[in-house]
Amino acid sequence: MRVLVLGGDGYLGWPTALYLSSHGHDVGIVDNFVRRQYDLEMGVDSLVPIVQAQARVRRWREVSGLTVELHVGDLTDAAFVEQTFSAFEPDAVVHFGEQRSAPYSMIDRQHAVYTQHNNVIGNLNVLYTIADQDPSIHLVKLGSMGEYGSPNIDIEEGFIEITHKGRTDTLPYPKQPGSFYHLSKVHDSHNIMFACKIWGLRSTDLNQGIVYGQYTEETALHEDLATRLDYDAVFGTVLNRFCAQAVADKPLTVYGKGGQTRGMLDIRDTLACIELALTNSPAKGEYRVFNQFTESFSVLELAQKVAAIHGDGVRVEHLEDPRVEDEEHYYGATHTKLLDLGLVPHLLSDETIERLLSLATRYRSRIDEKAIAPTVSWRRTSSKLPTATTSAPL
Amino acid sequence: MRVLVLGGDGYLGWPTALYLSSHGHDVGIVDNFVRRQYDLEMGVDSLVPIVQAQARVRRWREVSGLTVELHVGDLTDAAFVEQTFSAFEPDAVVHFGEQRSAPYSMIDRQHAVYTQHNNVIGNLNVLYTIADQDPSIHLVKLGSMGEYGSPNIDIEEGFIEITHKGRTDTLPYPKQPGSFYHLSKVHDSHNIMFACKIWGLRSTDLNQGIVYGQYTEETALHEDLATRLDYDAVFGTVLNRFCAQAVADKPLTVYGKGGQTRGMLDIRDTLACIELALTNSPAKGEYRVFNQFTESFSVLELAQKVAAIHGDGVRVEHLEDPRVEDEEHYYGATHTKLLDLGLVPHLLSDETIERLLSLATRYRSRIDEKAIAPTVSWRRTSSKLPTATTSAPL
Repeated sequence: MRVLVLGGDGYLGWPTALYLSSHGHDVGIVDNFVRRQYDLEMGVDSLVPIVQAQARVRRWREVSGLTVELHVGDLTDAAFVEQTFSAFEPDAVVHFGEQRSAPYSMIDRQHAVYTQHNNVIGNLNVLYTIADQDPSIHLVKLGSMGEYGSPNIDIEEGFIEITHKGRTDTLPYPKQPGSFYHLSKVHDSHNIMFACKIWGLRSTDLNQGIVYGQYTEETALHEDLATRLDYDAVFGTVLNRFCAQAVADKPLTVYGKGGQTRGMLDIRDTLACIELALTNSPAKGEYRVFNQFTESFSVLELAQKVAAIHGDGVRVEHLEDPRVEDEEHYYGATHTKLLDLGLVPHLLSDETIERLLSLATRYRSRIDEKAIAPTVSWRRTSSKLPTATTSAPL
Repeated sequence: MRVLVLGGDGYLGWPTALYLSSHGHDVGIVDNFVRRQYDLEMGVDSLVPIVQAQARVRRWREVSGLTVELHVGDLTDAAFVEQTFSAFEPDAVVHFGEQRSAPYSMIDRQHAVYTQHNNVIGNLNVLYTIADQDPSIHLVKLGSMGEYGSPNIDIEEGFIEITHKGRTDTLPYPKQPGSFYHLSKVHDSHNIMFACKIWGLRSTDLNQGIVYGQYTEETALHEDLATRLDYDAVFGTVLNRFCAQAVADKPLTVYGKGGQTRGMLDIRDTLACIELALTNSPAKGEYRVFNQFTESFSVLELAQKVAAIHGDGVRVEHLEDPRVEDEEHYYGATHTKLLDLGLVPHLLSDETIERLLSLATRYRSRIDEKAIAPTVSWRRTSSKLPTATTSAPL
């Protein structure tokens, strides 16, 4: 299968590209490297050093004998998208190519506008290009479990049957996203559902939980094949950040009570889920949604797990929550569709946390403690902006 | 009350501005005149001649003794929005300032992207400006009944109580919008709901039905105060268009079976609803949704009504539906909140249709029959684009 991985230079896009390549697919990567530019803007960096895209593509060929094509450009540039699709002729597209940080989207107006413009318009260009060039191309789109928010009823996979005043229908699951980033994903989902309906496109919307880990079979083959690991307050996600804090002998900072419960998954399961979606294609015109996570944890539970495994007197500290969110809430979310397709999850084990801790120890000298404290507030009136941040790369 | 009417030069924005002005409010109009530019792009024009904004503002002062401020600029220009709000210091904002045609948004990629960019980013700029300058400003936002689509259960006003697996919550009503334009309104609604939650803004989202009519008390005071009336396939809405077709001795063209049922309202009720929303402000942090229509009709019913009243052997013709939509469906939509606030509807009467027919007769020579046939298809493969349309005014 010919698969184009949009955002193939990122944390998950890169290991996905290698995984699909090693599993016999012809893979192309599309990226504009804006994720690396966010690092420059924020003055932060990946905990694990990463080499340039061209160099890692060459290294992959050397290590595996397999070729991954690299296409450098921006999805908001429609002519670039059209040319790239036309040249590569994909059977499927895995779309990671969006600004994916909630705090980044909440920095200020410019970053909110940048995020929604970049994500929504880039995705519209992809939809139009598929419709125009080959409506049978399967679009596997990365969404987020954060699109749902934390309703007081069970979260279903994209759709819910509602009986109301004596009538029944199955409707899109109501969304209550918690940041301008998550809102951009909700906008995408609505646009994709519509494109499938009117143009007969086929798409899988993966509402992914929070991913942890950095180890995958392919990226472990050579240091130059490593994928990035973010621990900072803007791009770092919760478990990865806790491991960096523990290694830096800093308290594990939990926002508010820490009762925020989220679906989570190992990075290796992200790769497996994407291949399952690709090899079990939806029908023409079908828009389907999978909830892509394997377990759920509260933030406080995760901090306690990391503290217990790391030991050395590391403590858990509660900060005032910079986000506007429920610090304690009901959380029940269905996630059976990928299991039904054959997913065998890597559940969160002590070994996974130990591997992350030893990775953080190896790169201890690269940890910038100032990057860990939250700097972005959801509350406009008390918003403290990082001084280095003046404009989004629009 | 100081009220800024965004899009105050348009079909509904202009009569709203005059109505509020005559009812004792201090009114400012914001517009970039892009609606007039769409006419130039498409080669169509309002059935009723309209004078320039500056001239009609002057005429209003002459006729009424009242001043309406005019601010010319683009809502996607954040600095302009900030300066205008800061200069005018509104207590409330009525936001009509968006591209509002479904067919226009479906012309091609550029027009879809233009519509979502223009509407979503403009609205984000308004939200940030309110949050930064004065979170107590009440945002009255024009949405659309078309955001809901045609579900097989009753449509509620913005939210629905769902009981699922033994638990109950009240959640945003699921949306199934039918064009990239309607999608932009859904994106706006999600963004506004979030802004109310995190910043404590107050907003009323008016999911308006299809508006008919052109007569309002204020615009009738002088020919120069007239608001536009569109009958063309791209900007003309159904009842207004049927009246133009009848007068032009053309068949009334119904798309498909004509069983498409929609909420509708008289232009005078639009004005009354907006004032009711303004004078009954939501609480700080409250995001409320009103379904703003008074009756629902199927498209075929409307055509038959117009044919019966006009007589002269005018017939109803069924065209292949250029849209992808249900041609027959259940339609039950709640609309009690505005009635509870005191709305006294102008229900669709023979007199209203007769008034529209005589208006069309008066301007018979301005009817361009070529502008009435649908040129925009929702189906990408069979899309026939108007030859004059090459790019959106982005």
